[in-house]
Amino acid sequence: MATVKIGLLGFGTVGRGVYKVLQTHREKIYNTLGVEVEIGRVLVRNLEKYQKTYPELIDLFTENPEEIIDNPEIKIIVEVMGGINPALDYVLQAMKNGKSVITANKDMVAERGRELFATHEEQGVDFLFEASVAGGIPIIRTLKESLAGNSFKEVIGIINGTTNYMLTKMSLFGTPYEEVLKEAQEKGYAEADPTSDVEGLDAARKLAILASIAFNSRVTFGDVYAEGITRITPIDIQYARELGGVIKLLGIAKEDEEGIEVRVHPTIIPESHPLAAVNDVFNAIFVEGDAVGPLMFYGRGAGELPTASAVVGDIIEAVKNISHHDTGRIGCTCYLEKPVKPIGEISSKYFIRLVVEDKPGVLASVAQVFGNQSVSIASVIQKRSLEDLAELVVLTHRVKERYIRDAVSVLKGMSTVREISNVIRAEGDF
Amino acid sequence: MATVKIGLLGFGTVGRGVYKVLQTHREKIYNTLGVEVEIGRVLVRNLEKYQKTYPELIDLFTENPEEIIDNPEIKIIVEVMGGINPALDYVLQAMKNGKSVITANKDMVAERGRELFATHEEQGVDFLFEASVAGGIPIIRTLKESLAGNSFKEVIGIINGTTNYMLTKMSLFGTPYEEVLKEAQEKGYAEADPTSDVEGLDAARKLAILASIAFNSRVTFGDVYAEGITRITPIDIQYARELGGVIKLLGIAKEDEEGIEVRVHPTIIPESHPLAAVNDVFNAIFVEGDAVGPLMFYGRGAGELPTASAVVGDIIEAVKNISHHDTGRIGCTCYLEKPVKPIGEISSKYFIRLVVEDKPGVLASVAQVFGNQSVSIASVIQKRSLEDLAELVVLTHRVKERYIRDAVSVLKGMSTVREISNVIRAEGDF
Repeated sequence: MATVKIGLLGFGTVGRGVYKVLQTHREKIYNTLGVEVEIGRVLVRNLEKYQKTYPELIDLFTENPEEIIDNPEIKIIVEVMGGINPALDYVLQAMKNGKSVITANKDMVAERGRELFATHEEQGVDFLFEASVAGGIPIIRTLKESLAGNSFKEVIGIINGTTNYMLTKMSLFGTPYEEVLKEAQEKGYAEADPTSDVEGLDAARKLAILASIAFNSRVTFGDVYAEGITRITPIDIQYARELGGVIKLLGIAKEDEEGIEVRVHPTIIPESHPLAAVNDVFNAIFVEGDAVGPLMFYGRGAGELPTASAVVGDIIEAVKNISHHDTGRIGCTCYLEKPVKPIGEISSKYFIRLVVEDKPGVLASVAQVFGNQSVSIASVIQKRSLEDLAELVVLTHRVKERYIRDAVSVLKGMSTVREISNVIRAEGDF
Repeated sequence: MATVKIGLLGFGTVGRGVYKVLQTHREKIYNTLGVEVEIGRVLVRNLEKYQKTYPELIDLFTENPEEIIDNPEIKIIVEVMGGINPALDYVLQAMKNGKSVITANKDMVAERGRELFATHEEQGVDFLFEASVAGGIPIIRTLKESLAGNSFKEVIGIINGTTNYMLTKMSLFGTPYEEVLKEAQEKGYAEADPTSDVEGLDAARKLAILASIAFNSRVTFGDVYAEGITRITPIDIQYARELGGVIKLLGIAKEDEEGIEVRVHPTIIPESHPLAAVNDVFNAIFVEGDAVGPLMFYGRGAGELPTASAVVGDIIEAVKNISHHDTGRIGCTCYLEKPVKPIGEISSKYFIRLVVEDKPGVLASVAQVFGNQSVSIASVIQKRSLEDLAELVVLTHRVKERYIRDAVSVLKGMSTVREISNVIRAEGDF
């Protein structure tokens, strides 16, 4: 076999990146594999548009997915169209036709992993998805293969570049959320509808995928508690700094004897934590293995070429497996069934910012509420803000989330408490 | 095939770690592979010693290597004895006997890679060596596989934990070299004869392996310029800090149209560089791929369990390949022959600390020497030190090393220059 043909489903940013990387490294890839890798067909929505901009590919574009999925010449499908439908149907059908599938589609993997892996195993084809998490950072195969001699209790990551860029700007310049969002949109880092990034949904999908692999148990998007950065203000960031911390949107996955916890939310971490120095659009994933100890992987989590780097790494694997008659060798690793804890059952430290009446006994009564819920307070910052009101920041010790929720709900009902301005989780030692 | 037996050559720190990790993760490994992995035989130098401390392995220990290398029941050899002889003979013979080989032996791979890879390719067996570089950090297979769609121009790493620990202590507490070395020896971080670590030889071996993979061209230990940390003083560290930098022992591999440069030496890097925050015994490797952009991998570069994590990752790969009849799938990637530049031809910035007579015209004459060698000066710090002498620190712009060497040799001959106290290379923007 001298040539393996791949079919591209989609020719957006990532698809074009894959085309470019395959072109640039044609020789290196041939030297690695002893086989040529060629794009055989490209599914696009608007044939005319692409035929003009990519005349060298004019014969490869098609608007008909069957010309790729049912094409016996094409051995590997690269799905970079995004969204669950119709991508899922195409990919399942392609596997049933004996083709290996590579995808960058985190929505599909995080929501429909079970069917995808079942079909992949039934058919004995490859199903690879390195690009679905943290763009160019090699993490999926690393966890599944190089680190297979470890068990993991914790995966913590900055896995959304848009919000990390925004929080970095807010931290450096004190820029408010709305303004920094506009700037991110102008730079192309945030989309016109930024919901998926700023509400933590994008990160939640990636975290579901990471947790499934780390804990050998299927975690889906719906299992992940997601809270975004829309309520973070420069004031919160300033107080966090006073406590020696920075605010990052983290994906946190942990496992203990009670089950798995998976949550995405703004988190205050100590300035000395390796993740605290990860700025701008960069991503990083921190894992702790029982043998290897702490590991951190840092790089670009998105973008045309970084994402294409991950896809092409998978293409090379899939081509090698086809030419060695060894497809399907990297299987699903979710052979256990572990429960996912509801958010009330997780434990964290909490930063609570509130506005109270500035008169004798108020601090005592606030402290009493926490005490009644068995919440132990680590530190308090009190500042006079407006006339007869004071701003109070409370940092708690580690405690179950439901106790905090109960305490906050009691506080909300108190006449001396004017506002619960924010509640932010914190990890690490302050 | 229900069980794959492996033979351990050596039962020192790493060997015992491999045994522990295989024990701890017996079930996980079985779930991953569908095959049991069992230690079949263990080569030790002193049978009696181990039979007492590991009675459960009493029947497995042997002092006779042939009982492992020539044993048809053993399919995989794990070489963790270290040193080139007799390890090389054992490993070559094992491959000729059709066994896959896993090694943690950087000396052997960095010096005798050519023969090892030739035999591995002839025999079609696996030859894996993840543990030979940076302990638990997954970098070898990541560069070869996940990042195969990139070309690399640069690999920079902190790849010796002992010296990183020592430099960290010297930076934090101003402790002198001799004292910090003693402390490192007491903690077991440095050996009684610390030469290999402190002279940069250990790092040079790892860099040779990394550069070979990154640039697809064989680089051996002998190609690497190595300079250790023995001449670094707290004074140098203090001046570096005044320039906004920290001193790290870096392995630096770069490639341009003239060839490859590979060098290990103390290097001043800006405080803001991701590697600057890598402290204590931690290692980190920074690579820049043309598609993926900058990537950094951070973790423990040595120790029983981190190194065992890498070995066990390779064992799982080798077992999978045996059970899939697909051994030898990860081949040698050195298919090019690129020249290695002599150290005089590399370019760097330079920090030169010297003691001169403190009288009019001396600074001008020193500056003139640099000017004559086309060395452009970026900044100068001058401080009065003793009576009529002044200490001068010069930071140059990027220039070829041989011009610096020429300048320093002229300076040494000047009557107004009392001492060239140190010359340290610098990378990055200050």
